[in-house]
Amino acid sequence: MLEINPHRLMDDLRHLRTIGKFGTGVVRPAFSPTDMQARRWLSDRMAQAGLQASIDGVGNVLGKSQNPGKAVLIGSHTDTQPQGGWLDGSLGVMYGLEVARAFAEHRPTARYAVDVASWSDEEGTYMGLLGSRSFCGVLKRGDMATAQNHQTAQPLSAALEQAKLTGIPTQRLDPGRYAAYLEAHVEQGPHLDNQGILLGVVTAIVGIRTFRVAFKGQQNHAGTTPMAYRRDAGAALMALAHLINGEFPTAAGPRTVWTIGHVRLEPGSPSVVPGRAEMFLQFRDTDNKILDALEATTARIVATANKDGPVTVDLETVSPWSEPAAMDGAVQECLAAAAETHAPGRWSRMPSGAGHDAQIFAGILPAGMLFVPSIGGISHDIAEDTAEEDIVRGCRTLATATAALLRQANPV
Amino acid sequence: MLEINPHRLMDDLRHLRTIGKFGTGVVRPAFSPTDMQARRWLSDRMAQAGLQASIDGVGNVLGKSQNPGKAVLIGSHTDTQPQGGWLDGSLGVMYGLEVARAFAEHRPTARYAVDVASWSDEEGTYMGLLGSRSFCGVLKRGDMATAQNHQTAQPLSAALEQAKLTGIPTQRLDPGRYAAYLEAHVEQGPHLDNQGILLGVVTAIVGIRTFRVAFKGQQNHAGTTPMAYRRDAGAALMALAHLINGEFPTAAGPRTVWTIGHVRLEPGSPSVVPGRAEMFLQFRDTDNKILDALEATTARIVATANKDGPVTVDLETVSPWSEPAAMDGAVQECLAAAAETHAPGRWSRMPSGAGHDAQIFAGILPAGMLFVPSIGGISHDIAEDTAEEDIVRGCRTLATATAALLRQANPV
Repeated sequence: MLEINPHRLMDDLRHLRTIGKFGTGVVRPAFSPTDMQARRWLSDRMAQAGLQASIDGVGNVLGKSQNPGKAVLIGSHTDTQPQGGWLDGSLGVMYGLEVARAFAEHRPTARYAVDVASWSDEEGTYMGLLGSRSFCGVLKRGDMATAQNHQTAQPLSAALEQAKLTGIPTQRLDPGRYAAYLEAHVEQGPHLDNQGILLGVVTAIVGIRTFRVAFKGQQNHAGTTPMAYRRDAGAALMALAHLINGEFPTAAGPRTVWTIGHVRLEPGSPSVVPGRAEMFLQFRDTDNKILDALEATTARIVATANKDGPVTVDLETVSPWSEPAAMDGAVQECLAAAAETHAPGRWSRMPSGAGHDAQIFAGILPAGMLFVPSIGGISHDIAEDTAEEDIVRGCRTLATATAALLRQANPV
Repeated sequence: MLEINPHRLMDDLRHLRTIGKFGTGVVRPAFSPTDMQARRWLSDRMAQAGLQASIDGVGNVLGKSQNPGKAVLIGSHTDTQPQGGWLDGSLGVMYGLEVARAFAEHRPTARYAVDVASWSDEEGTYMGLLGSRSFCGVLKRGDMATAQNHQTAQPLSAALEQAKLTGIPTQRLDPGRYAAYLEAHVEQGPHLDNQGILLGVVTAIVGIRTFRVAFKGQQNHAGTTPMAYRRDAGAALMALAHLINGEFPTAAGPRTVWTIGHVRLEPGSPSVVPGRAEMFLQFRDTDNKILDALEATTARIVATANKDGPVTVDLETVSPWSEPAAMDGAVQECLAAAAETHAPGRWSRMPSGAGHDAQIFAGILPAGMLFVPSIGGISHDIAEDTAEEDIVRGCRTLATATAALLRQANPV
């Protein structure tokens, strides 16, 4: 029977955790010395597993099987948030490597080709999903030239040079090689953990729409300006935010989320009536019709605010912005069957509220994703964790699903 | 007939404008080199007018008349906001000097004592109303030791040393000397200008109450955290601000103002559910009963929010905070009679929505204030201005009122 090696998997995950270790978490933002150190270590581990390993010009680590036939590509990312959890994308990358090793060690699967990858800058230190976009050939002209670090403003090109990647060619996906793309990840939310569900088979990855709402009124003395004379940009923002939070539930679906994560009033003094204000509104759903309805609601609320005055309101789209990406039906069935094998009755189908490299592949290959529980739903924080038995169960499930996909794709 | 010299008044105001000139405005924050230069120039001009002039240990410039009898003290301030208007408090100080000169030049008034002052740091670069508080003896122990620059964190003591004021004694008010305290100022609001009113006789200076409202929820991923699981500190803030803006009109008086001038969400990212948030709420009125009602409304809204959850809300009082200060009835009558003389039918009584040194004196001396129109209501901005004829009319009115007060206080 095909069997992964849980100790080897956990040992590799724990070793990876030492690279950029920060408390219980890790600090490996894209192209940092620790990120590159982890990628070189990963490339060595792939080579030890018999894969043809290389790091390409945007930092993607790709380990290719030497076996003939249709392959399955298993990937995720080893870069992290400025202060990230130890599992996050690393879990899915090490699953891929362990599945490849387990396949090689088991006679009935030894002939199958399993490729493994760690895509670069999934977290968007310079550009979200950079590595998978580059590999899938969906970067637009100029995307890379204008990308820069959101915190330091360092251009992506300078980061690539510092990481000694300049001049190295980038690898490009050969769609004919692959039967499917698979990615495993910690859930990053509380759904599985709260309900005692052990595995999540992802149905779709949400689309994200983000807007900057800018308010222009008149800055004034907070003592001498009567209420009736005011054009208070801050008060207009509060009123609009209240309408958003009041009206969105009507247009939203059961899984829709929306967030006002950033607000700024100018000049921001307790004794000054704000002359300008801005807020960022973001909403996510797997259904474009719902996203359209929420966008229409937002536009209507903004138009009414502009008509009523006395503050002018401007709505502009900003990053992050992405289309919903459905996971492939047949791949979902393979993952569901494997989940039922390893966690009978204790798995469920669910959308992904976070973005993942799989959404880039979904347009090109049959793609699927598997979630394991995040303890307390904590993510993007050094406190992120998953129980060891859940980690091991996830890898076993992915191995079973990969075997099924490869059997279907490579009939004897 | 008692007559001020409009050219001398305007020349002095224009000369003062050159000290720290910045575009059409001035930069003379308290204890800066330009502020001290202006104070030394003022002291010289007072001495030239026959006043006994000195600068005390907190920077107050006081010009004392040598005449016997009850005096009137006319003061305001020559320090400015980081970028202030050219008139603001300077207007009232130069009015005082011009009134003193006019009195000395007119035989029937030459025997009266008019003292003139520029109080230090009215604008609160280190501590609002510092000079008048010091002169009136209402500073609390430790107030000066803990005061520091709000922007640079320089201690007040270091600023006094840099301004070469260390070791110079502070002057203290002799209440027996004065019949009244008078202060003129630009209105800083749109009331007079909008309604074509030429003079404002101040009835009272508003009390100010400022609160910090702090919200504590749970920071989370904006994509993976379902709406029902969220403890969104930002959404709680928006909801509470909406209730404040909805309920305050019921408890407010016709002149009440309230402002939410500062809001901050943490961590402030479009893709993160805010775990913490804060806002500053300030309200002003001349009536403590109304301030009490607004505070009770705020406390009730906060208590309900805490009861309903899921975010905890904390209400704390912060600076600026001050009590309403009624202007003296008899002094108001003198100012009203003078206003009727110089602007028949085109003056009105009104409260001051801004704080002024007169609020410190109001507890100790009969105090009164006179406003002249601010063009467009603009204040604390280099665009602040008042028409020259309005400037001159204000000074004439103040001279007439001062003469009436001194005649009453010094019967022949």
